[in-house]
Amino acid sequence: MNFREEQARKVAEIEKALARFLPKPRGYQKTVLEAMEYSLMAGGKRLRPMLAWETYRMLGGTGNVIWPFAAALEMIHTYSLVHDDLPAMDDDEYRRGRKTTHVVYGEAMGILAGDALLNYAFETAASAFDMEGEDVRAIGRAMQVLAAKAGVFGMIGGQAVDVESSGKIIDEEKLDFIYRLKTGALIECAMMMGAILAGASGEEVSAVETIATKVGAAFQIQDDILDVTGAAEVLGKPTHSDEKNEKTTYVTYKGLDAARSEVERLSREAVERLRELKPADPFLEELILSLIKREK
Amino acid sequence: MNFREEQARKVAEIEKALARFLPKPRGYQKTVLEAMEYSLMAGGKRLRPMLAWETYRMLGGTGNVIWPFAAALEMIHTYSLVHDDLPAMDDDEYRRGRKTTHVVYGEAMGILAGDALLNYAFETAASAFDMEGEDVRAIGRAMQVLAAKAGVFGMIGGQAVDVESSGKIIDEEKLDFIYRLKTGALIECAMMMGAILAGASGEEVSAVETIATKVGAAFQIQDDILDVTGAAEVLGKPTHSDEKNEKTTYVTYKGLDAARSEVERLSREAVERLRELKPADPFLEELILSLIKREK
Repeated sequence: MNFREEQARKVAEIEKALARFLPKPRGYQKTVLEAMEYSLMAGGKRLRPMLAWETYRMLGGTGNVIWPFAAALEMIHTYSLVHDDLPAMDDDEYRRGRKTTHVVYGEAMGILAGDALLNYAFETAASAFDMEGEDVRAIGRAMQVLAAKAGVFGMIGGQAVDVESSGKIIDEEKLDFIYRLKTGALIECAMMMGAILAGASGEEVSAVETIATKVGAAFQIQDDILDVTGAAEVLGKPTHSDEKNEKTTYVTYKGLDAARSEVERLSREAVERLRELKPADPFLEELILSLIKREK
Repeated sequence: MNFREEQARKVAEIEKALARFLPKPRGYQKTVLEAMEYSLMAGGKRLRPMLAWETYRMLGGTGNVIWPFAAALEMIHTYSLVHDDLPAMDDDEYRRGRKTTHVVYGEAMGILAGDALLNYAFETAASAFDMEGEDVRAIGRAMQVLAAKAGVFGMIGGQAVDVESSGKIIDEEKLDFIYRLKTGALIECAMMMGAILAGASGEEVSAVETIATKVGAAFQIQDDILDVTGAAEVLGKPTHSDEKNEKTTYVTYKGLDAARSEVERLSREAVERLRELKPADPFLEELILSLIKREK
């Protein structure tokens, strides 16, 4: 099986897990449950759960305890997109080639569906406490990392600074801060939770965090490149949205060529560090390197 | 010390705990941290943390493990108000006599500060895993109850159905459903977490849930009564908002007199059940009965 086939197979397995954890739309609150499902099952690369799962596996994890956390992470990523798309935020009508959640279900339901996904992420992760034979302390530690990396000193903090910086010239330090938090934090979270739940040592978890920081930065810079050079029909969303929202990005700051070599440098460094940690994990290496070549 | 004095002393202690858990506004994400603080430290009855604490104490809890959960609950209650006040939701400009969060910080920051408070609630609760000598399984179970009661089968579910029912005639079953979830769920959560963390049996936790359901219903009906009869300057928010939003409430459905006797009946039943569980807890009993007489 080549990398693309294996990736597709893994995406399908992740989607099955997501569907399993997601409550079925029913009863009085059917609409909000539908809106959650519409948002979560909209396709996508499923990069974060995949990184969680692969890191768990690479470091010797063989159980199912990674699944509630991998699913939780995708729910958090999804809610952040749902709220990001709201009229008061980026005001986007399309995402992954489909109408955004608030366009389909109305703005109030968009806010509530986002809240519900964020909350349900923790509900899903907390279901791990019912799993027999798992290390309760590791589950508790993974919950702490999930909450910290998604929160005001993680993803939300990055979003808040990003929103405030819109239309303003920002320096490189602040840009790095936004990138590290807005996109990097959840990628760090994915790989760290994988390591923690696999029973990795504190040192290994730190090494994994460093790798993930590089992957996250590479991923965000590639996003900025695609916003300028990508095709809307491939991306499934409008391009030049950063220009529209007057955002300083790595590309506006350094230019396309410097951005491209930065993505390449960061991805290669991440792979080298990975090899120091655990020799030869071809799928995870290819996954990280594929971030350079992606077109969406 | 009479009840009012004791209540004021306990509110002060809860506010100190909230301030301790809340991160200080600093760094790049200072604004969102300020908006979180503005929202959380706006006063209020602190009923949910007080019920959590009192139930914990009543059932023999003597440690500090209740505090991260009591604080988490108030953060969740607060984020739900912040999002409820947004223009796309109830569109309220005042709350507790002060401008609402989105009016002060803008709509985007209002959305993000709400998200941040919800997320920080779980971050705060998860900090309990670091407390020495506490029962990790009970903490895990309390996390599950917190997530479930705040989520789509709890508070958010009730809000979603409430939003959809605005301007529509709804039957009594649906009204009960909305009340039980929108307001009742967090009150059930408070008392159940208190019981779980105090080491109560499953049977005791169930008994506590039943009591809390009655307290929650009484509380919500009193809210509806005050929306009709209360003074805006005492409540700190505009009255007649249910009428403005075309909401069916217990009062529009049954009339003021029936609503008043229902609050009285539910509160007295809750106190009776409480006495069956644990004889004579004067403060908790008075707290529940004070809900009948409250003017805000």
